Amino acid sequence: MTDLTAHRGTGIFYRCLSPDPLLPAMAPTPIPPDPAAPVFADTQTLLPVIAQDDQTGEVLMLAYMNREAYEETLRTGQAVYYSRSREALWRKGDTSGHVQRVRAILLDCDRDTILLRVEQVGAGACHEGYRSCFFRQVTPEGLRVVAERVYDPNITYGPG
Amino acid sequence: MTDLTAHRGTGIFYRCLSPDPLLPAMAPTPIPPDPAAPVFADTQTLLPVIAQDDQTGEVLMLAYMNREAYEETLRTGQAVYYSRSREALWRKGDTSGHVQRVRAILLDCDRDTILLRVEQVGAGACHEGYRSCFFRQVTPEGLRVVAERVYDPNITYGPG
Repeated sequence: MTDLTAHRGTGIFYRCLSPDPLLPAMAPTPIPPDPAAPVFADTQTLLPVIAQDDQTGEVLMLAYMNREAYEETLRTGQAVYYSRSREALWRKGDTSGHVQRVRAILLDCDRDTILLRVEQVGAGACHEGYRSCFFRQVTPEGLRVVAERVYDPNITYGPG
Repeated sequence: MTDLTAHRGTGIFYRCLSPDPLLPAMAPTPIPPDPAAPVFADTQTLLPVIAQDDQTGEVLMLAYMNREAYEETLRTGQAVYYSRSREALWRKGDTSGHVQRVRAILLDCDRDTILLRVEQVGAGACHEGYRSCFFRQVTPEGLRVVAERVYDPNITYGPG
């Protein structure tokens, strides 16, 4: 550790604003990334999050989290995403009641994708009335709906 | 349709370089997006792709596709991604032999995420030797490995 007081007697005690060539760089020590957390490079970083039904294995949706959304998810035990269109935290189920209770959080090998295993409360995860957002399959004849609608979004969300 | 020849006699026939206020905008008619395909805004757009084991429902990995990778996947019936680190098409399994045969392609409600239901050939999807890249769970004590290693990546890929 460099003894800053040694410079005081010289009358040229530098505040951090003006780097002293005699001192090691005074940049704040970076906080080491938490090896048990997803790699959010900064507060703006968005990582993709897969929500999977913990009971059935069905993939329900893909959304995004920033660090704040991830920490809110950990704190509350319910999925909190970051809405790219609204540019704000998105507490899943706030409008519909279709919250997702988090049963497990898994990270991939690069720690840049999050897999949430959830209990999907209410009828479905998809705002179009389906349990999963992946309700259409690509076929040579076009997209084919391969799931049943489980609720009426006009009732849950009001007419669009 | 505006008759361009009508302007020729005036001696001020505009090429497209110089917009004629008398003519409707001459921008090329955009190709309507294919309603049965993912929404790739342009050739650079990358969309997230979830690969899920078609038999077990296990989420194997998340990767990205550009339009070319998507079309190669359709054409070959095997998963072709776009590697962001190598900035090139990534024919999954080219090195390891662990190809993914595509059983179904599903799109989400916004058509900006792709779910591939695949037959995972070989031991695993993850280059670290696990069947799924999501082999670690977030716990209060740190990341916990919750899967068995199914192959030795040093043998499959050579020593790192």
